[in-house]
Amino acid sequence: MRIALDAMGGDYAPAVNIEGAVETVNNFEDTQIILVGDEQTLKRDLDNKRYPPKSISIKHASQFVRMDESPSFAIRKKKDSSIRRGMELVKNGEADAFVSAGHSGVVMATALLLLGTADLVDRPAIAAIMPTLRSPFVLIDAGANLHCTPRNLLQFALMGSTYCRLILGRPEPRIALISTGEEDTKGNELTKETFKLLKEADINFIGNVDGKDIFTGDTDVIVCDGFTGNIILKTSEGLADALIKMLKREVANLTAGRIGYLLMKPALKKFKKKTDYDEYGGAPLLGINGTCIISHGRSTAKAIRNAIRVAADFAKKKVYEIISSAIEKDISHHERIKVAKK
Amino acid sequence: MRIALDAMGGDYAPAVNIEGAVETVNNFEDTQIILVGDEQTLKRDLDNKRYPPKSISIKHASQFVRMDESPSFAIRKKKDSSIRRGMELVKNGEADAFVSAGHSGVVMATALLLLGTADLVDRPAIAAIMPTLRSPFVLIDAGANLHCTPRNLLQFALMGSTYCRLILGRPEPRIALISTGEEDTKGNELTKETFKLLKEADINFIGNVDGKDIFTGDTDVIVCDGFTGNIILKTSEGLADALIKMLKREVANLTAGRIGYLLMKPALKKFKKKTDYDEYGGAPLLGINGTCIISHGRSTAKAIRNAIRVAADFAKKKVYEIISSAIEKDISHHERIKVAKK
Repeated sequence: MRIALDAMGGDYAPAVNIEGAVETVNNFEDTQIILVGDEQTLKRDLDNKRYPPKSISIKHASQFVRMDESPSFAIRKKKDSSIRRGMELVKNGEADAFVSAGHSGVVMATALLLLGTADLVDRPAIAAIMPTLRSPFVLIDAGANLHCTPRNLLQFALMGSTYCRLILGRPEPRIALISTGEEDTKGNELTKETFKLLKEADINFIGNVDGKDIFTGDTDVIVCDGFTGNIILKTSEGLADALIKMLKREVANLTAGRIGYLLMKPALKKFKKKTDYDEYGGAPLLGINGTCIISHGRSTAKAIRNAIRVAADFAKKKVYEIISSAIEKDISHHERIKVAKK
Repeated sequence: MRIALDAMGGDYAPAVNIEGAVETVNNFEDTQIILVGDEQTLKRDLDNKRYPPKSISIKHASQFVRMDESPSFAIRKKKDSSIRRGMELVKNGEADAFVSAGHSGVVMATALLLLGTADLVDRPAIAAIMPTLRSPFVLIDAGANLHCTPRNLLQFALMGSTYCRLILGRPEPRIALISTGEEDTKGNELTKETFKLLKEADINFIGNVDGKDIFTGDTDVIVCDGFTGNIILKTSEGLADALIKMLKREVANLTAGRIGYLLMKPALKKFKKKTDYDEYGGAPLLGINGTCIISHGRSTAKAIRNAIRVAADFAKKKVYEIISSAIEKDISHHERIKVAKK
């Protein structure tokens, strides 16, 4: 698999990106990485690393997108950015997938522009996997679209359902809409209108859930607009971090607790691994014609490595093609049912 | 202090409400509770309880608002509801505060109708206190207004700042706006427009924060619309619950861990107390002419007890009057600055 990696994207780029790439090729013979970014910088940073020489190449891009730049600005003014050049490699068939921890709004806009959406899909969405007390669920949209219509959310539900069925292997995914309460009268205009559409759709819609219920493991797919999804994802990350730190501090205050802590360490480690977002690495952008994995801005080398692994796996299994055709089938089936009902 | 308690509000009403009321009057001599709800039911349930007889009275209300009823429906059709009758007691000076774990949208609409807002305040907001790694912060709006304008959010920031200064005793509260990234270009139309207003306001605005940063303790007040606030509050509750359960389960799987768990138990207990939302009990509705404390729907007897304690404390300190006049001063100061700048 040939993975194009945005070497300039993310808060700790290019250091952790290069580290993640080198660790990947040293562990997986079948993966080649194309680092996309400033050639001179990347060459210099690669110089003191050991890896099979043919497994990493560089694609020069003279620009990179800053986190405070808007997607429209980046699209217009940064035509030689690492995001654009990386996406072009996928478009031209020179790479099987693109991974970026850069500005997710710009990655999405570039994917839309260069790869386009699957037939019948209006907007792509980020599908993030989140841990729960039981099996993980898919959060869609986890941050690609900050403004959504009820129709967008209906399509996210269909895409999430398809993804969950095909990739997580759950035959009839339970789809829920996040709102301020379980009742269908709760929520804002967007969730109330979406509720009506989801109730009519040919999916296993189980109704609204509120924030308190998302980690119980009783849902397979949770649908929301990208602003809400971003808040849920990041608040959960921040809280999990804070809780682990608080717990350690409480324990450190006790002598008996310190011994207890040592005895509990294996459990804590396993627990941390379960709630560690770096383990998931990256989330696919569903609904576009190509494999594109978005990693969060604070990605570590471990997160980059796992994002590359997810990308290679997706590309190998031709996930985007399978999902695209299933989504098209689901959406057109949904549209047909709607027409038939009228 | 005379506290009117919505005996019919909440998922476990009236049992936990009555329990919370009885526990309160048995522990605090200076608190009288007026239980608002169906007289017959309440009388029967109170019959087998022991408490100073004069400390609890009943105000009959023949109706109660269901969680799936809309505020406009409740206002029109439920004129004898426990929420309305309770709020009337505050309006008429028969109670010093009203506490409800019922439908928060209906509580707010009723407060608006009967008590009205402080001068210059367009919409009241719920100010919830949330724990962090260091000192807690104020989340405003935690769920009262599901649709907000930038001007609403500016006023929430001013109210939150005043509240934090006067009640939490922080002289210059750090105010942050929750968005999808720290940069002022990140977020949706609402947060982008609000950012501009907050930057111009006479408060200590420290910029955007994303979900990952809210639990570090680097902010005193976090501003958001009520939909987002509800999601943050409930997601945090759900995740904290789930993490504690996951940790216990991991530990139970290890023999050494089990001993470790016993040794760590005091720390875990202290930790749970710190992250237990029942400890906070309820959150004030800021910006209205009266003391009104909103408890969440899943309130236990402990949460009700703590909400009553918060209400009594607020009423005793005349918090709403102090805050209202400070808010009026702050908002009019802000409006004057804006006019002067033009």
